[in-house]
Amino acid sequence: MLFKVEMKVNLPHDMPAEVAAEIKAREKAYAQELQTQGKWRHLWRVAGSYANVSIFDVADNAELQDLISNLPLFPYMDIQVAPLCRHPSSIHQDDR
Amino acid sequence: MLFKVEMKVNLPHDMPAEVAAEIKAREKAYAQELQTQGKWRHLWRVAGSYANVSIFDVADNAELQDLISNLPLFPYMDIQVAPLCRHPSSIHQDDR
Amino acid sequence: MLFKVEMKVNLPHDMPAEVAAEIKAREKAYAQELQTQGKWRHLWRVAGSYANVSIFDVADNAELQDLISNLPLFPYMDIQVAPLCRHPSSIHQDDR
Amino acid sequence: MLFKVEMKVNLPHDMPAEVAAEIKAREKAYAQELQTQGKWRHLWRVAGSYANVSIFDVADNAELQDLISNLPLFPYMDIQVAPLCRHPSSIHQDDR
Amino acid sequence: MLFKVEMKVNLPHDMPAEVAAEIKAREKAYAQELQTQGKWRHLWRVAGSYANVSIFDVADNAELQDLISNLPLFPYMDIQVAPLCRHPSSIHQDDR
Amino acid sequence: MLFKVEMKVNLPHDMPAEVAAEIKAREKAYAQELQTQGKWRHLWRVAGSYANVSIFDVADNAELQDLISNLPLFPYMDIQVAPLCRHPSSIHQDDR
Amino acid sequence: MLFKVEMKVNLPHDMPAEVAAEIKAREKAYAQELQTQGKWRHLWRVAGSYANVSIFDVADNAELQDLISNLPLFPYMDIQVAPLCRHPSSIHQDDR
Amino acid sequence: MLFKVEMKVNLPHDMPAEVAAEIKAREKAYAQELQTQGKWRHLWRVAGSYANVSIFDVADNAELQDLISNLPLFPYMDIQVAPLCRHPSSIHQDDR
Amino acid sequence: MLFKVEMKVNLPHDMPAEVAAEIKAREKAYAQELQTQGKWRHLWRVAGSYANVSIFDVADNAELQDLISNLPLFPYMDIQVAPLCRHPSSIHQDDR
Amino acid sequence: MLFKVEMKVNLPHDMPAEVAAEIKAREKAYAQELQTQGKWRHLWRVAGSYANVSIFDVADNAELQDLISNLPLFPYMDIQVAPLCRHPSSIHQDDR
Repeated sequence: MLFKVEMKVNLPHDMPAEVAAEIKAREKAYAQELQTQGKWRHLWRVAGSYANVSIFDVADNAELQDLISNLPLFPYMDIQVAPLCRHPSSIHQDDR
Repeated sequence: MLFKVEMKVNLPHDMPAEVAAEIKAREKAYAQELQTQGKWRHLWRVAGSYANVSIFDVADNAELQDLISNLPLFPYMDIQVAPLCRHPSSIHQDDR
Repeated sequence: MLFKVEMKVNLPHDMPAEVAAEIKAREKAYAQELQTQGKWRHLWRVAGSYANVSIFDVADNAELQDLISNLPLFPYMDIQVAPLCRHPSSIHQDDR
Repeated sequence: MLFKVEMKVNLPHDMPAEVAAEIKAREKAYAQELQTQGKWRHLWRVAGSYANVSIFDVADNAELQDLISNLPLFPYMDIQVAPLCRHPSSIHQDDR
Repeated sequence: MLFKVEMKVNLPHDMPAEVAAEIKAREKAYAQELQTQGKWRHLWRVAGSYANVSIFDVADNAELQDLISNLPLFPYMDIQVAPLCRHPSSIHQDDR
Repeated sequence: MLFKVEMKVNLPHDMPAEVAAEIKAREKAYAQELQTQGKWRHLWRVAGSYANVSIFDVADNAELQDLISNLPLFPYMDIQVAPLCRHPSSIHQDDR
Repeated sequence: MLFKVEMKVNLPHDMPAEVAAEIKAREKAYAQELQTQGKWRHLWRVAGSYANVSIFDVADNAELQDLISNLPLFPYMDIQVAPLCRHPSSIHQDDR
Repeated sequence: MLFKVEMKVNLPHDMPAEVAAEIKAREKAYAQELQTQGKWRHLWRVAGSYANVSIFDVADNAELQDLISNLPLFPYMDIQVAPLCRHPSSIHQDDR
Repeated sequence: MLFKVEMKVNLPHDMPAEVAAEIKAREKAYAQELQTQGKWRHLWRVAGSYANVSIFDVADNAELQDLISNLPLFPYMDIQVAPLCRHPSSIHQDDR
Repeated sequence: MLFKVEMKVNLPHDMPAEVAAEIKAREKAYAQELQTQGKWRHLWRVAGSYANVSIFDVADNAELQDLISNLPLFPYMDIQVAPLCRHPSSIHQDDR
């Protein structure tokens, strides 16, 4: 089951650089682990911003909540979620 | 070059059913032609709405404008566009 | 899987009264059928408005789209959807 | 009398972890006490967020204010309230 | 139990003058009847607009919905509702 | 001359409790003094919030500014003002 | 007593040209009459729009409502009102 | 050339009182100097707020930017600008 | 003097095609005339929309109003205006 | 390929003046370097604000992201991006 997830990062200006670097490193490792598992199907940067557009592929709403709330950057992001489903005009087999 | 395009359809309530049906049929044929050409890479329905989330793959902004403005439903849609690019944490080869 | 769905009805002012009545009758029958099936778990009027707050219980996003897009009032409503899941502080067994 | 209450938690980034943990523990105990009393009828997590959708069942507006303003997280939440009442199409006896 | 209700009237520009006059006459009679009954406690015009600020005094949310949805101008108004209760600093006995 | 005034309190999270208590005590005394003088005609809590809806009765705009800007909580509030006047359908003598 | 009033004109596209011309002629005459009386102190066009910024000088809120609601274009305008008063830094005698 | 300028002051809550007083004193002196020069034609307080509505009379956009960006409170204000010009219905000679 | 002007075209759905074509032809001729005169310095399509971003070069606000209000599409456009001036970091001689 | 980029600077009030000065100096040098390279085609100040309107000329979305995210002021700005392309009515050769 697919969800579009948009994340905008807002790091506090007074966060020490090494703390930010450590959180970002954990975020990257976690994001790549979820991609490897097939749960984070797409991850794009929105050009001109510190934000991304993502497609998650999860079993249900509960798994979506579990994956997102464990993002190391979760406390510092505005996150928008939209449930997706197959479009009747799609010809792509994996646009479920 | 990828763009996220979100389209929300607002057909006038007084449009005759057969006119609407004809426009939608042309929209579907056009959307499938663009998908076949690889220019409309993803097309998802937003669950609970008459709207879609799409990923377009175009040569440049001009081609994006050309493809979108030729949509048969173009005069009846609210359309939001966001330019995308590769995210440094992506491991998917086609998340350009 | 639960979703909060909020629906606001905007009937065109020039819709004939008997057309509106017929659509509303079909909407009511459909809503009650979905409630009987257990798919429309809660349905409340928002006091002071022509709007409702609903809880849908569906298999997945696709079923949510199927149920909502078939509402007779669908073309005349603003609809907002939010995916829900169990809250760690809930003690109600059916607040899945 | 029912109210939909939506709460979004915004903890200050510089709140010490043990202070946050203590407030959350009190919030959970209080939420479960109100659920046990039947005043907090439903409590759902909004998937992908630090937010909830709740249904309160109170005697009147004054009790709603009393219950909400005593939430330990009250100073740190954006809260939206909507008064609910029975929908003419509801078949659920407890959708008062 | 008190509610602040704000109503903004948006009559369709193509409504015949005599139809509008008839609806407004019924609205006025109904509003004065509810005021006489003590259910519509205050009714003020917002200066510079076709809008009002009102205070309703009702038994519960259901009565609020009943009174408002029966306003002859109901289909033509944007309506905002806020539940009120006694303020701890009020010294007015009827600011319940 | 009447004005609807809506006030939403946003105390900084790092304000010491005794400072907040002292400001609130002064606010309460000032609010009650203005009510006694007949200038603050109504004061209601908005249920589920740290906000109020008020009706001020002042000689002119200048007095409104004078009264509001001297509120001890003034620097910590979002304040919305709407000028009111008699509604042609009002039957209440004091709904000037 | 001064008020800033901003008016944005939205004439229906299907209003016959001679009807629009007649309303605008009455609006102009009325606006000039109010200016002559000193009640409409300033009237500026917002460059690039069919909108104006105005300063009204009235006895009270009721007169403001009376003057504005009698504008021939009143049913076709979005109108925003802000009560003004003397600024402590003003040196202009008529910036009351 | 006239511009409407609206300024809303948001002083940081942790700014020491003497720093705020010093900035405000400089702001007042600067505002009065510009008024004396005829460049700041009107200055009104918006009743019930820490905000003003102003009319600037400048040679061009560059002078507007120069005057506003040198306001001592500039870093602490939300500022909205609208270019004005003569309204065809104005009878006031100085409503250029 | 430069202004950024953003125009979004909203033609009524029931405008006859030949009327729309005639207005668009006049709009194009007028736009090209203003460009030839050097008053409409830049004109770009916003990709994926029926909208443009433009830079106007005018003597003053009054000329801006004159040029824009004479656009044949003026009654059918949402228009946003921002006054521009030289940026201290610009090295382009014509970025006045 | 052109993009309109709007940047609004929000420096934290507690940033030391010399830190701000150093960031601004680097921003200016970087902006002028990009202008020299032809990638930052236009740069205007929005009159009355700490904001700019810019036109970037880049090879693709990725280069736009690269240029913008390396702005020294990037962490302190709200940035809006719109993809541009040639307008059919433009007569300027460089309005690509």
